[in-house]
Amino acid sequence: MTAMTRGGPPAKDSVEVDMNDGTGQREQERPRVVILGAGFAGLSAALALAREPVDVVIVDRQNYHLFQPLLYQVATAALSPADIAAPIRGIVGRFENCSVLLDTIDEIDREAREVRTAGGRRVGYDHLIVATGATHNYFGNDHWREVAPGLKRIEDATELRRRILMAFELAEMEEDPDVRDALMTFVVVGGGPTGVEMAGALAELARYTLARDFRHIRPEGTRVVLVDANDRLLRMFPERLSENAAQALTKIGVELVMNRRVDGMDHHCVSLGDRRINTRTVIWSAGVTASDAGKWLGVETDRAGRVPVDPFLRLEGDPRVHVIGDVASHTSPSGKVTPGLAPAAKQMGRYVARAIRRQARGKPVGAAFRYRDFGQLATIGRHSAICDFGRFTVSGYPGWWLWGGAHIYFLIGFRNRLAVAANWFWSYLTFGRGIRLITGDIGAKGPGQG
Amino acid sequence: MTAMTRGGPPAKDSVEVDMNDGTGQREQERPRVVILGAGFAGLSAALALAREPVDVVIVDRQNYHLFQPLLYQVATAALSPADIAAPIRGIVGRFENCSVLLDTIDEIDREAREVRTAGGRRVGYDHLIVATGATHNYFGNDHWREVAPGLKRIEDATELRRRILMAFELAEMEEDPDVRDALMTFVVVGGGPTGVEMAGALAELARYTLARDFRHIRPEGTRVVLVDANDRLLRMFPERLSENAAQALTKIGVELVMNRRVDGMDHHCVSLGDRRINTRTVIWSAGVTASDAGKWLGVETDRAGRVPVDPFLRLEGDPRVHVIGDVASHTSPSGKVTPGLAPAAKQMGRYVARAIRRQARGKPVGAAFRYRDFGQLATIGRHSAICDFGRFTVSGYPGWWLWGGAHIYFLIGFRNRLAVAANWFWSYLTFGRGIRLITGDIGAKGPGQG
Repeated sequence: MTAMTRGGPPAKDSVEVDMNDGTGQREQERPRVVILGAGFAGLSAALALAREPVDVVIVDRQNYHLFQPLLYQVATAALSPADIAAPIRGIVGRFENCSVLLDTIDEIDREAREVRTAGGRRVGYDHLIVATGATHNYFGNDHWREVAPGLKRIEDATELRRRILMAFELAEMEEDPDVRDALMTFVVVGGGPTGVEMAGALAELARYTLARDFRHIRPEGTRVVLVDANDRLLRMFPERLSENAAQALTKIGVELVMNRRVDGMDHHCVSLGDRRINTRTVIWSAGVTASDAGKWLGVETDRAGRVPVDPFLRLEGDPRVHVIGDVASHTSPSGKVTPGLAPAAKQMGRYVARAIRRQARGKPVGAAFRYRDFGQLATIGRHSAICDFGRFTVSGYPGWWLWGGAHIYFLIGFRNRLAVAANWFWSYLTFGRGIRLITGDIGAKGPGQG
Repeated sequence: MTAMTRGGPPAKDSVEVDMNDGTGQREQERPRVVILGAGFAGLSAALALAREPVDVVIVDRQNYHLFQPLLYQVATAALSPADIAAPIRGIVGRFENCSVLLDTIDEIDREAREVRTAGGRRVGYDHLIVATGATHNYFGNDHWREVAPGLKRIEDATELRRRILMAFELAEMEEDPDVRDALMTFVVVGGGPTGVEMAGALAELARYTLARDFRHIRPEGTRVVLVDANDRLLRMFPERLSENAAQALTKIGVELVMNRRVDGMDHHCVSLGDRRINTRTVIWSAGVTASDAGKWLGVETDRAGRVPVDPFLRLEGDPRVHVIGDVASHTSPSGKVTPGLAPAAKQMGRYVARAIRRQARGKPVGAAFRYRDFGQLATIGRHSAICDFGRFTVSGYPGWWLWGGAHIYFLIGFRNRLAVAANWFWSYLTFGRGIRLITGDIGAKGPGQG
């Protein structure tokens, strides 16, 4: 593997990228670690390898790390996108051995130990860490994607914010009571943490923030319907906490529709078997599927598209390739499946970084990966959250404070922590949400055509 | 003019809107003031009419008031859109006599005293205040619009932010030194306040914020070229301050090209007569043209598309129609043209509100409008600004503090003031800019194709 210097002759179809030095040959003793994806898993790995005797190249299609668990607050106008996103270069820029490539993955040549990108770049690796995460799963109904955006990217959240705020604006001007009711009905599909938090935040937005904004409609009368195919919300939590969550949601006016599966939707209604709900705004949080890593690596995936890994989070038979985070399918020796959650992703990132560090120093890899479950949190509107720490649980008001503190603590970057804390404090005091901006295409389309 | 109640039968093609009560007939003694546009002019008028014995209907195509003078800071990643925008309903929602309609204007029927919107609504008025502002003027070269966005809307600013940050990302990955240089060249067309502030902010972004972010390129070597067709910048300021501004810009590395007119541009270069500048990013701040108010009102406009008004800011021969802000062409009795600036727009708004208030109380309109020039401000990067107060001027470091204080003071809403102050304080201490997000279409297009 030779590295190309800046002055060298450009290859015909593609260029080999040497991201770490401009001096010509790479030093053979510094292995290069290529990390695909700067989510929780990839970024944790990169930070754990900073200042170590390896070269790190992070490849991501976005220029920022996104704190996905708070995306629903962008969608409900409580936070700005920049509050929960931090530029990757800003995070790793101070580490001389880390560089960043903004590009999308085309394929991985494991024979040549090389990643090829849509931008025509070839990035050689000694160790590859695949951490490209997951996207929405519409279970074969891909035409639902346009009707019911999910919450994975900033663009999803600002689009949902636009749709939600626009629905109230259109309702305010609407003469037909049926259309007005449909505009003021919001359906959230999927009762996992995102669905529960989104439904709660939507009900609060209508009840507290928008209440005095309008003249004709009563935003307090907004219908928020949360649909789930199972018999309880938040299945990963203990049953008692699911019950707490259901009570808290009902209390702030969310309608729960359990044991029902969505079998059709368009821009006017959602159908659940024989039941139809007229609505103009549907939010999808019913399922995720892994990114295309299985295809790039040329391996079989599980039903959710995830790549099976060995106890050391490596690809079976290819110890140079690690797969971590939501895209990995890992089962502990005791048979427990590691969940697709931020804490698991971060632990995986740190684990593979340590394994690579040990190898770089000529030591054995060490013990197999073990996920340590420190607990789970979810919030339901103002003054209510549920926290499960295995041996004990916290809910209601103290749970809510715990949830807020934990989320601020885990945000990347002091600036983001400050911004989120300030925005929350402001909203708490005033019941207001400052980020109620309808941006995007409305100028062109005109709201009258919605 | 009858008002339609919510339960009434909908008209076939259009609906008459009664925004202020749901009770049927409007009370005849409360005149209705319809305000088109919630910029500085329109919003000042609305606030000055709040709680007065009139009904106020604000029509805007956006749901927020935008503090345009700081848009360039959104484009250069220093502020978030929500920091300089405030939801109109949030501002006027507490006043019972104000209501808001999110729609675009189609036409104005002065005979029927009625505004017709793209959404098919008809809004009758007793007094009409037209305050729809201005947009970019490409002087007949409308195909430049795509190459060189201006800075009038939030979408302009986030698009420019995307282009600017993306140019550095592409330069980092580029092998061809000529292409790399073109990517790292930014051309700002027009040396008015927006152009000067934009050029300064761009030079600072490259010099301070991005300096340590990259491995291959040296962002400090970024070329920022400011082109103006005249022999000095900021023509509305005294000559000495123009000179100060030019010095400050040169000091932070901005190249000034004076007395040159842009006569061609595409996505690869800008031409100025026989001179060509290779660039991928052009920012337009060379001229504005008024919105379509002249067309809606059926009156002749001046060359800049503005509607001539009488000394009372009314349409000649139609005292029910007021035209204010950037869309009005007003000349003082002494022959001075009122400038298209935020302070003038706000004074005009308050003036017509007072005139309408007086009429509502059966009093005469009062004295003719007189613009009071309290001074002008412009900033050039860190620690430098110029302030002209007529009798005295302030520049350099004290000018910079004055500029910052004035802009925070004039922001609408305490939340925005706090957010901007906090962001600025953060940037000041750290030289960082937290809002470096490339959002929009990149996921789909892939950065490699830029």
